Amino acid sequence: MKQARFLSRGRLHMGRLVEPGVLVDEGGRAHREDDVTFLPPVEPGKVIGLALNFADHAAELNMQSPEEPALFFKPGNTLVGHRAPVVYPRGVQFMHYEVELAVVIGCRCRRVDESRAFDVVKGYTIANDVTVRDFVHNFYRPPVRAKGFDTFGPMGPYLVTADEVEDPHRLGLRAYVNGELRQEGNTAQMLRKIPELIAFITSFMTLDPDDVILTGTPKGISHVRPGDVMRLEIDGLGALENPVIAEEG
Amino acid sequence: MKQARFLSRGRLHMGRLVEPGVLVDEGGRAHREDDVTFLPPVEPGKVIGLALNFADHAAELNMQSPEEPALFFKPGNTLVGHRAPVVYPRGVQFMHYEVELAVVIGCRCRRVDESRAFDVVKGYTIANDVTVRDFVHNFYRPPVRAKGFDTFGPMGPYLVTADEVEDPHRLGLRAYVNGELRQEGNTAQMLRKIPELIAFITSFMTLDPDDVILTGTPKGISHVRPGDVMRLEIDGLGALENPVIAEEG
Repeated sequence: MKQARFLSRGRLHMGRLVEPGVLVDEGGRAHREDDVTFLPPVEPGKVIGLALNFADHAAELNMQSPEEPALFFKPGNTLVGHRAPVVYPRGVQFMHYEVELAVVIGCRCRRVDESRAFDVVKGYTIANDVTVRDFVHNFYRPPVRAKGFDTFGPMGPYLVTADEVEDPHRLGLRAYVNGELRQEGNTAQMLRKIPELIAFITSFMTLDPDDVILTGTPKGISHVRPGDVMRLEIDGLGALENPVIAEEG
Repeated sequence: MKQARFLSRGRLHMGRLVEPGVLVDEGGRAHREDDVTFLPPVEPGKVIGLALNFADHAAELNMQSPEEPALFFKPGNTLVGHRAPVVYPRGVQFMHYEVELAVVIGCRCRRVDESRAFDVVKGYTIANDVTVRDFVHNFYRPPVRAKGFDTFGPMGPYLVTADEVEDPHRLGLRAYVNGELRQEGNTAQMLRKIPELIAFITSFMTLDPDDVILTGTPKGISHVRPGDVMRLEIDGLGALENPVIAEEG
């Protein structure tokens, strides 16, 4: 099932995709996707990002892959849905998209063994881990500013339930800017796979329903500017499209 | 006013301290502090920590003070109230307390000028930024594991409203372990003061009511072990006491 949260005529709905372009809400009414405002498909209490989980991306940044999973948090103020604008901050030199498979947690869990990790996964969606590279070159690495601007966490369009994803480690990832393919990879390239990530995170942290784990991005980041449109695709999950707009003066 | 969230006879209450040791709930009933279970005084969507904001603490870690505020997030799974146990993880070598003034935000805000920063502050409380130092010595610095274990964020006992705190930059900070004074400082020593922190954070991030900013810790960290009791005091804010217990096998 592909579920979406959206606004239509001023009301918040939870719905599901019944055919391309058509959502049906909880009351059985149909809405054309073009007529609704998408919200992120879930409201996570925590969004946990993973740095440098693709060797080719670490190489393009001239960085080594970390000795243990390098985690960061994406705060709630970053979250926006499909089609919402991402605001390009004034004075910034280098802002980029990152296409990532987002894993959505389904239950409260702690100390999950790798062998049971998929039991706690509710589904998947697409995330764009928008980053300002200007603020990454800081010895004190928590990328709170680099990745924490309002609107820097587009997510969606749908929560695709786990039963619809045969193998989350065999999904093509693509990012287009203004229709041009810029980033391409496959979740098969992930250095640390989903079970290892869930086991590591829950070794110290309780996860809650709708918490999200971002599994890292492959090679192919490049600069975007106001006026550009970012389109991120993951096989079977749809396409997450967001325009970049300039920050107001 | 000193406000507290607490459980009494299975019910959640919001109350206020009317005399030492006595809370009055929203229905006017009195509760002895010794009879209630404290929760963190607010439920923050974001807890934003600040690394190395006291020069003497940076020096004891042999680190330089950062060129810009070095931020990190403390996730929601860390939060516990006054008197709740903090769990010492199995296999860890060096866990310590950090006494910190916690600033509680009162309204949704973005791009707050330093001159108006106190307009968005609802009040203050005490926070213990519990940290496992074992996991800090990692080039990839986001201290998600070091500071993100369940129970690593005691906070409270009270939200002390801003009108009761004459000068938040002139408050003594003290941490005791088993009654012995181990850490002592004053918020006057903060390298970056509250207005600068609020202006910096809101330059890129929307803050919401009950979001919390931890303003950093002075010199004096030391090891604690299961069986120890951490008691943190800040002038005018009370005392936050939490025992350390061993993780179960």
